[in-house]
Amino acid sequence: MSDKTLLYGVGTGPGDPELMTIKAVKALERSQVIAFFAKRGAVGNTRKIADQWITSDKIELPLYYPLTTELDYHSAEYIEQINGFFDEAAQSIRVHLQAGRTVSILSIGDPLFYGSYMHLHERLAHEFPTSVIPGITAMSGCWSLAGASIAQGEDVLCVLPGIMGEERLAARLEKAESVVIMKVGQNLAKIRRVLAHTGKLERAIYVERGTMEGGRHMKLVDKQDDEAPYFSLILVPGWSVRS
Amino acid sequence: MSDKTLLYGVGTGPGDPELMTIKAVKALERSQVIAFFAKRGAVGNTRKIADQWITSDKIELPLYYPLTTELDYHSAEYIEQINGFFDEAAQSIRVHLQAGRTVSILSIGDPLFYGSYMHLHERLAHEFPTSVIPGITAMSGCWSLAGASIAQGEDVLCVLPGIMGEERLAARLEKAESVVIMKVGQNLAKIRRVLAHTGKLERAIYVERGTMEGGRHMKLVDKQDDEAPYFSLILVPGWSVRS
Repeated sequence: MSDKTLLYGVGTGPGDPELMTIKAVKALERSQVIAFFAKRGAVGNTRKIADQWITSDKIELPLYYPLTTELDYHSAEYIEQINGFFDEAAQSIRVHLQAGRTVSILSIGDPLFYGSYMHLHERLAHEFPTSVIPGITAMSGCWSLAGASIAQGEDVLCVLPGIMGEERLAARLEKAESVVIMKVGQNLAKIRRVLAHTGKLERAIYVERGTMEGGRHMKLVDKQDDEAPYFSLILVPGWSVRS
Repeated sequence: MSDKTLLYGVGTGPGDPELMTIKAVKALERSQVIAFFAKRGAVGNTRKIADQWITSDKIELPLYYPLTTELDYHSAEYIEQINGFFDEAAQSIRVHLQAGRTVSILSIGDPLFYGSYMHLHERLAHEFPTSVIPGITAMSGCWSLAGASIAQGEDVLCVLPGIMGEERLAARLEKAESVVIMKVGQNLAKIRRVLAHTGKLERAIYVERGTMEGGRHMKLVDKQDDEAPYFSLILVPGWSVRS
Protein backbone atom coordinates (compact mmCIF):
# COMPACT_ATOMS: atom_id res chain seq x y z
CA MET A 1 0.00 0.00 0.00
CA SER A 2 1.65 3.19 -1.18
CA ASP A 3 1.91 6.00 1.34
CA LYS A 4 1.13 8.42 -1.46
CA THR A 5 -2.34 7.00 -1.96
CA LEU A 6 -5.07 9.64 -1.70
CA LEU A 7 -8.04 7.58 -2.83
CA TYR A 8 -8.81 4.10 -1.50
CA GLY A 9 -11.47 1.82 -2.95
CA VAL A 10 -12.11 -0.31 0.12
CA GLY A 11 -13.82 -3.70 -0.08
CA THR A 12 -15.69 -4.25 3.18
CA GLY A 13 -16.56 -7.88 2.44
CA PRO A 14 -20.05 -9.39 2.39
CA GLY A 15 -21.47 -8.43 5.80
CA ASP A 16 -19.61 -9.80 8.81
CA PRO A 17 -17.30 -6.97 10.04
CA GLU A 18 -14.63 -9.57 10.90
CA LEU A 19 -14.42 -10.43 7.20
CA MET A 20 -12.80 -7.06 6.57
CA THR A 21 -9.09 -7.31 5.82
CA ILE A 22 -6.34 -5.77 7.89
CA LYS A 23 -5.50 -3.61 4.87
CA ALA A 24 -9.06 -2.27 4.71
CA VAL A 25 -8.96 -1.32 8.37
CA LYS A 26 -5.61 0.46 7.92
CA ALA A 27 -6.98 2.40 4.94
CA LEU A 28 -9.90 3.64 7.04
CA GLU A 29 -7.54 4.64 9.84
CA ARG A 30 -5.46 6.68 7.36
CA SER A 31 -8.45 8.42 5.78
CA GLN A 32 -9.95 11.74 6.75
CA VAL A 33 -13.07 11.20 4.63
CA ILE A 34 -15.22 8.06 4.43
CA ALA A 35 -17.61 7.94 1.47
CA PHE A 36 -20.27 5.27 1.00
CA PHE A 37 -23.33 4.52 -1.10
CA ALA A 38 -26.74 4.31 0.57
CA LYS A 39 -30.43 4.55 -0.10
CA ARG A 40 -31.86 7.87 1.11
CA GLY A 41 -33.22 7.43 4.62
CA ALA A 42 -31.12 4.32 5.31
CA VAL A 43 -27.73 3.95 7.00
CA GLY A 44 -26.25 1.87 4.20
CA ASN A 45 -25.00 -1.70 4.51
CA THR A 46 -21.34 -0.92 3.92
CA ARG A 47 -21.45 1.90 6.49
CA LYS A 48 -22.79 -0.59 9.05
CA ILE A 49 -20.12 -3.19 8.28
CA ALA A 50 -17.29 -0.68 8.79
CA ASP A 51 -18.95 1.04 11.74
CA GLN A 52 -16.35 0.32 14.41
CA TRP A 53 -13.55 1.87 12.32
CA ILE A 54 -15.42 5.05 11.46
CA THR A 55 -14.37 7.14 14.41
CA SER A 56 -15.94 10.50 15.24
CA ASP A 57 -13.01 12.47 13.76
CA LYS A 58 -13.85 11.26 10.23
CA ILE A 59 -15.80 13.31 7.70
CA GLU A 60 -18.63 11.06 6.53
CA LEU A 61 -19.82 11.47 2.94
CA PRO A 62 -22.96 9.47 2.17
CA LEU A 63 -23.74 9.12 -1.53
CA TYR A 64 -27.49 8.66 -1.90
CA TYR A 65 -28.69 6.71 -4.92
CA PRO A 66 -31.35 8.54 -6.95
CA LEU A 67 -34.85 7.06 -6.84
CA THR A 68 -34.95 5.18 -10.13
CA THR A 69 -36.95 2.09 -9.21
CA GLU A 70 -39.75 2.96 -11.61
CA LEU A 71 -37.36 3.32 -14.56
CA ASP A 72 -36.24 0.54 -16.91
CA TYR A 73 -32.59 -0.37 -16.36
CA HIS A 74 -31.83 -0.03 -20.09
CA SER A 75 -33.81 3.19 -20.71
CA ALA A 76 -32.07 6.39 -21.75
CA GLU A 77 -33.67 8.18 -18.81
CA TYR A 78 -32.27 5.69 -16.29
CA ILE A 79 -28.79 5.82 -17.81
CA GLU A 80 -28.84 9.63 -17.79
CA GLN A 81 -29.98 9.84 -14.18
CA ILE A 82 -27.51 7.26 -12.91
CA ASN A 83 -24.59 8.77 -14.82
CA GLY A 84 -25.51 12.21 -13.48
CA PHE A 85 -25.53 10.76 -9.99
CA PHE A 86 -22.07 9.20 -10.41
CA ASP A 87 -20.73 12.47 -11.87
CA GLU A 88 -21.98 14.41 -8.85
CA ALA A 89 -20.72 11.79 -6.40
CA ALA A 90 -17.27 11.86 -8.02
CA GLN A 91 -17.24 15.65 -7.86
CA SER A 92 -18.09 15.67 -4.13
CA ILE A 93 -15.12 13.35 -3.55
CA ARG A 94 -12.83 15.27 -5.92
CA VAL A 95 -13.21 18.40 -3.78
CA HIS A 96 -11.77 16.57 -0.77
CA LEU A 97 -8.96 15.00 -2.79
CA GLN A 98 -7.99 18.37 -4.26
CA ALA A 99 -7.79 19.73 -0.70
CA GLY A 100 -5.27 16.95 0.06
CA ARG A 101 -7.59 14.85 2.21
CA THR A 102 -7.34 11.06 1.96
CA VAL A 103 -10.67 9.48 1.02
CA SER A 104 -11.87 5.89 1.43
CA ILE A 105 -14.85 4.83 -0.65
CA LEU A 106 -16.52 1.83 0.99
CA SER A 107 -17.72 -0.92 -1.30
CA ILE A 108 -19.66 -4.00 -0.17
CA GLY A 109 -17.95 -7.23 -1.20
CA ASP A 110 -15.10 -6.53 -3.66
CA PRO A 111 -14.91 -3.03 -5.22
CA LEU A 112 -14.25 -4.13 -8.82
CA PHE A 113 -16.62 -7.13 -8.83
CA TYR A 114 -20.10 -5.89 -9.79
CA GLY A 115 -19.64 -2.92 -7.43
CA SER A 116 -20.85 0.69 -7.71
CA TYR A 117 -17.34 1.79 -6.74
CA MET A 118 -16.04 1.20 -10.26
CA HIS A 119 -18.16 4.09 -11.58
CA LEU A 120 -16.19 6.40 -9.27
CA HIS A 121 -12.88 4.65 -10.02
CA GLU A 122 -13.34 5.35 -13.74
CA ARG A 123 -13.95 9.02 -12.97
CA LEU A 124 -11.19 9.62 -10.38
CA ALA A 125 -8.36 7.06 -10.53
CA HIS A 126 -6.57 8.78 -13.43
CA GLU A 127 -6.48 12.07 -11.50
CA PHE A 128 -5.32 10.95 -8.05
CA PRO A 129 -3.01 8.23 -6.62
CA THR A 130 -5.48 5.38 -6.05
CA SER A 131 -5.30 1.95 -4.40
CA VAL A 132 -8.03 -0.66 -4.61
CA ILE A 133 -8.24 -3.00 -1.62
CA PRO A 134 -9.94 -6.25 -2.57
CA GLY A 135 -12.72 -7.60 -0.37
CA ILE A 136 -14.33 -10.97 0.29
CA THR A 137 -17.11 -11.37 -2.27
CA ALA A 138 -20.66 -12.32 -1.29
CA MET A 139 -20.24 -15.56 -3.22
CA SER A 140 -17.12 -16.56 -1.21
CA GLY A 141 -18.99 -15.76 1.99
CA CYS A 142 -21.90 -17.93 0.88
CA TRP A 143 -19.97 -21.01 -0.25
CA SER A 144 -17.90 -20.84 2.96
CA LEU A 145 -21.07 -20.70 5.09
CA ALA A 146 -22.49 -23.67 3.18
CA GLY A 147 -19.15 -25.55 3.25
CA ALA A 148 -19.56 -26.11 -0.49
CA SER A 149 -16.44 -26.94 -2.51
CA ILE A 150 -17.27 -24.67 -5.41
CA ALA A 151 -14.52 -25.47 -7.94
CA GLN A 152 -11.47 -27.70 -8.32
CA GLY A 153 -8.96 -28.77 -10.94
CA GLU A 154 -10.26 -28.16 -14.46
CA ASP A 155 -13.74 -26.98 -13.41
CA VAL A 156 -15.00 -23.89 -15.22
CA LEU A 157 -16.76 -21.51 -12.83
CA CYS A 158 -19.43 -19.20 -14.25
CA VAL A 159 -20.91 -16.27 -12.37
CA LEU A 160 -24.32 -15.40 -13.80
CA PRO A 161 -26.66 -12.55 -12.88
CA GLY A 162 -30.13 -14.01 -12.22
CA ILE A 163 -31.70 -11.06 -14.04
CA MET A 164 -30.60 -12.59 -17.38
CA GLY A 165 -33.25 -13.86 -19.77
CA GLU A 166 -34.23 -17.53 -19.51
CA GLU A 167 -32.70 -18.69 -22.81
CA ARG A 168 -29.40 -16.92 -22.28
CA LEU A 169 -29.20 -18.28 -18.74
CA ALA A 170 -29.83 -21.84 -19.96
CA ALA A 171 -27.15 -21.59 -22.67
CA ARG A 172 -24.55 -20.47 -20.11
CA LEU A 173 -25.55 -23.04 -17.50
CA GLU A 174 -25.03 -25.91 -19.92
CA LYS A 175 -21.36 -24.96 -20.37
CA ALA A 176 -20.27 -24.70 -16.73
CA GLU A 177 -19.30 -27.26 -14.12
CA SER A 178 -19.47 -24.75 -11.26
CA VAL A 179 -22.10 -22.03 -11.14
CA VAL A 180 -22.89 -19.01 -9.00
CA ILE A 181 -26.16 -17.21 -9.74
CA MET A 182 -26.31 -13.76 -8.16
CA LYS A 183 -29.17 -11.24 -7.94
CA VAL A 184 -31.69 -14.00 -7.31
CA GLY A 185 -34.41 -11.80 -5.74
CA GLN A 186 -37.52 -11.93 -7.93
CA ASN A 187 -35.99 -14.45 -10.34
CA LEU A 188 -36.07 -17.66 -8.32
CA ALA A 189 -38.93 -19.39 -10.17
CA LYS A 190 -37.18 -18.81 -13.51
CA ILE A 191 -33.80 -19.94 -12.13
CA ARG A 192 -35.35 -23.10 -10.72
CA ARG A 193 -36.83 -23.97 -14.16
CA VAL A 194 -33.51 -23.42 -15.93
CA LEU A 195 -31.56 -25.48 -13.37
CA ALA A 196 -34.02 -28.37 -13.74
CA HIS A 197 -33.83 -28.11 -17.54
CA THR A 198 -30.00 -28.28 -17.51
CA GLY A 199 -29.79 -31.14 -14.98
CA LYS A 200 -28.30 -28.99 -12.19
CA LEU A 201 -31.25 -28.65 -9.82
CA GLU A 202 -30.32 -31.57 -7.55
CA ARG A 203 -26.87 -30.10 -6.82
CA ALA A 204 -28.06 -26.50 -6.34
CA ILE A 205 -27.74 -24.82 -2.94
CA TYR A 206 -29.78 -21.76 -1.96
CA VAL A 207 -28.02 -19.28 0.38
CA GLU A 208 -29.80 -16.34 1.97
CA ARG A 209 -28.01 -13.41 3.62
CA GLY A 210 -24.72 -15.35 3.72
CA THR A 211 -22.38 -14.01 6.46
CA MET A 212 -25.04 -11.53 7.61
CA GLU A 213 -27.18 -11.99 10.69
CA GLY A 214 -29.90 -14.56 10.03
CA GLY A 215 -27.92 -16.17 7.22
CA ARG A 216 -29.08 -19.67 6.22
CA HIS A 217 -28.66 -22.22 3.44
CA MET A 218 -30.45 -25.30 2.16
CA LYS A 219 -30.69 -27.53 -0.89
CA LEU A 220 -32.76 -25.62 -3.42
CA VAL A 221 -35.03 -28.66 -3.87
CA ASP A 222 -35.88 -28.39 -0.15
CA LYS A 223 -36.99 -24.77 -0.46
CA GLN A 224 -40.78 -24.81 -0.77
CA ASP A 225 -41.48 -21.29 -2.08
CA ASP A 226 -39.95 -18.90 -4.61
CA GLU A 227 -39.55 -15.95 -2.25
CA ALA A 228 -35.96 -14.71 -2.03
CA PRO A 229 -34.46 -11.49 -0.66
CA TYR A 230 -32.00 -9.38 -2.65
CA PHE A 231 -29.09 -10.81 -0.65
CA SER A 232 -29.53 -14.40 -1.77
CA LEU A 233 -27.73 -16.53 -4.30
CA ILE A 234 -27.59 -19.99 -5.80
CA LEU A 235 -24.47 -22.18 -5.82
CA VAL A 236 -23.90 -25.25 -7.96
CA PRO A 237 -20.64 -26.79 -6.70
CA GLY A 238 -18.64 -28.31 -9.50
CA TRP A 239 -16.41 -30.56 -7.53
CA SER A 240 -19.10 -33.18 -6.89
CA VAL A 241 -18.68 -34.10 -10.56
CA ARG A 242 -15.37 -35.72 -9.64
CA SER A 243 -16.25 -37.42 -6.40
CA MET B 1 -17.82 -17.80 14.31
CA SER B 2 -19.04 -20.52 16.65
CA ASP B 3 -17.07 -21.00 19.86
CA LYS B 4 -17.56 -24.73 19.44
CA THR B 5 -15.52 -24.83 16.25
CA LEU B 6 -12.63 -27.30 16.40
CA LEU B 7 -11.53 -27.18 12.78
CA TYR B 8 -10.98 -23.96 10.83
CA GLY B 9 -10.36 -23.81 7.12
CA VAL B 10 -8.55 -20.47 6.97
CA GLY B 11 -8.19 -18.49 3.77
CA THR B 12 -4.95 -16.50 3.98
CA GLY B 13 -5.61 -14.45 0.84
CA PRO B 14 -3.34 -14.21 -2.19
CA GLY B 15 0.01 -13.17 -0.70
CA ASP B 16 0.06 -9.82 1.09
CA PRO B 17 -0.29 -10.60 4.85
CA GLU B 18 -2.46 -7.49 5.26
CA LEU B 19 -5.03 -9.08 2.96
CA MET B 20 -5.84 -11.61 5.68
CA THR B 21 -9.19 -10.97 7.35
CA ILE B 22 -9.68 -10.16 11.01
CA LYS B 23 -11.60 -13.44 11.30
CA ALA B 24 -8.66 -15.42 9.92
CA VAL B 25 -6.31 -13.82 12.46
CA LYS B 26 -8.71 -14.62 15.31
CA ALA B 27 -8.98 -18.24 14.18
CA LEU B 28 -5.18 -18.58 14.29
CA GLU B 29 -5.08 -17.00 17.74
CA ARG B 30 -7.64 -19.56 18.98
CA SER B 31 -5.87 -22.58 17.46
CA GLN B 32 -3.34 -24.82 19.14
CA VAL B 33 -2.35 -26.50 15.86
CA ILE B 34 -1.59 -24.79 12.53
CA ALA B 35 -1.54 -27.14 9.52
CA PHE B 36 -0.42 -26.08 6.04
CA PHE B 37 0.50 -27.57 2.68
CA ALA B 38 4.05 -27.21 1.39
CA LYS B 39 6.52 -28.70 -1.01
CA ARG B 40 9.14 -30.78 0.79
CA GLY B 41 12.16 -28.61 1.52
CA ALA B 42 10.21 -25.35 1.19
CA VAL B 43 8.53 -23.19 3.85
CA GLY B 44 5.22 -23.03 2.02
CA ASN B 45 3.59 -19.87 0.70
CA THR B 46 0.62 -19.90 3.06
CA ARG B 47 2.91 -20.44 6.06
CA LYS B 48 4.88 -17.34 5.03
CA ILE B 49 1.73 -15.21 4.62
CA ALA B 50 0.48 -16.07 8.11
CA ASP B 51 3.93 -15.94 9.72
CA GLN B 52 3.36 -13.11 12.18
CA TRP B 53 0.35 -14.89 13.73
CA ILE B 54 2.04 -18.26 14.15
CA THR B 55 3.48 -17.73 17.59
CA SER B 56 5.98 -20.11 19.16
CA ASP B 57 3.33 -21.79 21.36
CA LYS B 58 1.58 -23.27 18.30
CA ILE B 59 2.09 -26.83 17.11
CA GLU B 60 3.01 -26.59 13.44
CA LEU B 61 1.88 -29.40 11.16
CA PRO B 62 3.35 -29.15 7.66
CA LEU B 63 1.65 -31.37 5.06
CA TYR B 64 4.21 -32.17 2.37
CA TYR B 65 2.85 -32.88 -1.09
CA PRO B 66 4.12 -36.15 -2.59
CA LEU B 67 6.50 -35.86 -5.53
CA THR B 68 4.16 -36.53 -8.46
CA THR B 69 5.48 -34.15 -11.09
CA GLU B 70 6.43 -37.00 -13.42
CA LEU B 71 2.92 -38.49 -13.29
CA ASP B 72 -0.01 -37.60 -15.56
CA TYR B 73 -2.68 -35.66 -13.67
CA HIS B 74 -5.39 -38.04 -14.92
CA SER B 75 -3.48 -41.32 -14.40
CA ALA B 76 -4.67 -43.92 -11.90
CA GLU B 77 -1.26 -43.82 -10.25
CA TYR B 78 -1.43 -40.05 -9.68
CA ILE B 79 -4.97 -40.25 -8.31
CA GLU B 80 -4.01 -43.08 -5.97
CA GLN B 81 -0.91 -41.28 -4.67
CA ILE B 82 -2.67 -37.97 -4.14
CA ASN B 83 -5.68 -39.56 -2.45
CA GLY B 84 -3.35 -41.52 -0.17
CA PHE B 85 -1.60 -38.29 0.70
CA PHE B 86 -4.88 -36.52 1.56
CA ASP B 87 -5.99 -39.53 3.64
CA GLU B 88 -2.75 -39.43 5.65
CA ALA B 89 -2.91 -35.64 6.03
CA ALA B 90 -6.50 -35.85 7.28
CA GLN B 91 -5.51 -38.57 9.75
CA SER B 92 -2.63 -36.51 11.15
CA ILE B 93 -5.12 -33.67 11.78
CA ARG B 94 -7.82 -36.01 13.12
CA VAL B 95 -5.49 -37.11 15.92
CA HIS B 96 -5.26 -33.52 17.19
CA LEU B 97 -9.00 -32.91 16.84
CA GLN B 98 -9.80 -36.10 18.76
CA ALA B 99 -7.51 -34.87 21.54
CA GLY B 100 -9.66 -31.71 21.72
CA ARG B 101 -7.12 -29.39 20.12
CA THR B 102 -8.37 -26.65 17.81
CA VAL B 103 -6.76 -26.86 14.36
CA SER B 104 -6.46 -24.22 11.63
CA ILE B 105 -5.66 -25.45 8.13
CA LEU B 106 -4.13 -22.61 6.14
CA SER B 107 -5.25 -22.25 2.54
CA ILE B 108 -3.83 -19.73 0.06
CA GLY B 109 -6.56 -17.56 -1.45
CA ASP B 110 -10.02 -18.90 -0.59
CA PRO B 111 -10.24 -22.43 0.89
CA LEU B 112 -13.15 -23.68 -1.24
CA PHE B 113 -12.08 -22.02 -4.51
CA TYR B 114 -9.66 -24.40 -6.30
CA GLY B 115 -7.90 -25.05 -2.97
CA SER B 116 -6.26 -28.20 -1.60
CA TYR B 117 -8.11 -27.55 1.66
CA MET B 118 -11.35 -28.98 0.27
CA HIS B 119 -9.81 -32.47 0.13
CA LEU B 120 -9.39 -32.30 3.91
CA HIS B 121 -12.79 -30.65 4.40
CA GLU B 122 -14.49 -33.59 2.66
CA ARG B 123 -12.67 -35.99 4.96
CA LEU B 124 -13.10 -34.17 8.29
CA ALA B 125 -15.98 -31.66 8.31
CA HIS B 126 -18.67 -34.30 8.95
CA GLU B 127 -16.78 -35.53 12.03
CA PHE B 128 -15.91 -32.27 13.81
CA PRO B 129 -17.48 -28.79 14.21
CA THR B 130 -15.93 -26.93 11.28
CA SER B 131 -15.92 -23.29 10.10
CA VAL B 132 -14.58 -22.15 6.76
CA ILE B 133 -13.20 -18.60 6.72
CA PRO B 134 -13.25 -17.18 3.21
CA GLY B 135 -10.15 -15.49 1.85
CA ILE B 136 -9.34 -12.94 -0.86
CA THR B 137 -8.82 -14.91 -4.07
CA ALA B 138 -5.76 -14.45 -6.26
CA MET B 139 -8.02 -13.15 -9.02
CA SER B 140 -9.46 -10.40 -6.75
CA GLY B 141 -5.93 -9.45 -5.73
CA CYS B 142 -4.90 -9.25 -9.37
CA TRP B 143 -7.79 -7.17 -10.72
CA SER B 144 -7.41 -4.80 -7.73
CA LEU B 145 -3.69 -4.36 -8.43
CA ALA B 146 -4.46 -3.68 -12.10
CA GLY B 147 -7.42 -1.41 -11.24
CA ALA B 148 -9.48 -3.41 -13.75
CA SER B 149 -13.28 -3.30 -13.44
CA ILE B 150 -13.80 -6.99 -14.02
CA ALA B 151 -17.60 -7.29 -14.19
CA GLN B 152 -20.71 -5.12 -13.95
CA GLY B 153 -24.47 -5.35 -14.45
CA GLU B 154 -25.41 -8.31 -16.66
CA ASP B 155 -21.82 -9.38 -17.45
CA VAL B 156 -21.18 -13.11 -17.20
CA LEU B 157 -17.83 -13.84 -15.55
CA CYS B 158 -16.07 -17.09 -16.42
CA VAL B 159 -13.11 -18.47 -14.53
CA LEU B 160 -11.13 -20.84 -16.75
CA PRO B 161 -8.09 -22.96 -15.90
CA GLY B 162 -5.39 -22.32 -18.53
CA ILE B 163 -4.55 -26.02 -18.57
CA MET B 164 -7.75 -26.69 -20.56
CA GLY B 165 -7.44 -27.88 -24.15
CA GLU B 166 -7.43 -25.21 -26.88
CA GLU B 167 -10.84 -26.04 -28.38
CA ARG B 168 -12.65 -26.22 -25.06
CA LEU B 169 -11.01 -22.95 -23.96
CA ALA B 170 -12.13 -21.22 -27.17
CA ALA B 171 -15.72 -22.44 -26.79
CA ARG B 172 -15.93 -21.04 -23.28
CA LEU B 173 -14.24 -17.74 -24.12
CA GLU B 174 -16.78 -16.99 -26.82
CA LYS B 175 -19.62 -17.09 -24.29
CA ALA B 176 -18.26 -14.75 -21.62
CA GLU B 177 -18.05 -10.97 -21.29
CA SER B 178 -15.61 -11.12 -18.38
CA VAL B 179 -12.86 -13.71 -18.18
CA VAL B 180 -10.24 -14.81 -15.69
CA ILE B 181 -7.74 -17.41 -16.88
CA MET B 182 -5.86 -19.05 -14.03
CA LYS B 183 -2.92 -21.46 -14.04
CA VAL B 184 -1.28 -19.65 -16.93
CA GLY B 185 2.26 -20.97 -16.39
CA GLN B 186 3.32 -23.00 -19.42
CA ASN B 187 0.10 -22.25 -21.32
CA LEU B 188 0.59 -18.62 -22.32
CA ALA B 189 1.26 -19.19 -26.03
CA LYS B 190 -1.92 -21.26 -26.35
CA ILE B 191 -3.97 -18.74 -24.34
CA ARG B 192 -2.72 -15.89 -26.52
CA ARG B 193 -3.83 -17.73 -29.69
CA VAL B 194 -7.29 -18.43 -28.27
CA LEU B 195 -7.77 -14.83 -27.09
CA ALA B 196 -6.82 -13.53 -30.53
CA HIS B 197 -9.16 -16.02 -32.20
CA THR B 198 -12.11 -14.94 -30.03
CA GLY B 199 -11.48 -11.19 -30.36
CA LYS B 200 -10.44 -10.68 -26.72
CA LEU B 201 -6.68 -10.19 -27.05
CA GLU B 202 -6.77 -6.38 -27.17
CA ARG B 203 -8.60 -6.17 -23.82
CA ALA B 204 -6.53 -8.85 -22.04
CA ILE B 205 -4.35 -7.90 -19.06
CA TYR B 206 -1.46 -10.07 -17.87
CA VAL B 207 -0.81 -10.04 -14.10
CA GLU B 208 2.21 -11.67 -12.54
CA ARG B 209 2.53 -12.41 -8.80
CA GLY B 210 -0.42 -10.10 -7.98
CA THR B 211 -0.23 -8.83 -4.37
CA MET B 212 3.10 -10.61 -3.83
CA GLU B 213 6.45 -8.90 -3.80
CA GLY B 214 7.52 -8.03 -7.34
CA GLY B 215 3.93 -8.08 -8.60
CA ARG B 216 3.36 -6.39 -11.99
CA HIS B 217 0.78 -6.10 -14.73
CA MET B 218 0.64 -5.05 -18.36
CA LYS B 219 -1.53 -5.34 -21.45
CA LEU B 220 -0.98 -8.84 -22.80
CA VAL B 221 -0.24 -7.41 -26.25
CA ASP B 222 2.67 -5.51 -24.70
CA LYS B 223 4.23 -8.67 -23.26
CA GLN B 224 6.95 -9.76 -25.69
CA ASP B 225 7.54 -13.36 -24.60
CA ASP B 226 5.46 -16.33 -23.52
CA GLU B 227 7.27 -16.97 -20.22
CA ALA B 228 4.94 -16.88 -17.23
CA PRO B 229 5.41 -18.05 -13.63
CA TYR B 230 2.87 -20.29 -11.87
CA PHE B 231 1.45 -17.26 -10.02
CA SER B 232 0.24 -15.39 -13.07
CA LEU B 233 -3.15 -14.94 -14.61
CA ILE B 234 -5.00 -13.24 -17.44
CA LEU B 235 -7.93 -10.86 -16.96
CA VAL B 236 -10.38 -9.77 -19.63
CA PRO B 237 -12.50 -7.04 -17.99
CA GLY B 238 -16.10 -7.17 -19.20
CA TRP B 239 -17.15 -3.71 -18.27
CA SER B 240 -15.33 -1.97 -21.11
CA VAL B 241 -18.05 -3.46 -23.34
CA ARG B 242 -20.43 -0.88 -21.90
CA SER B 243 -18.24 2.19 -21.79
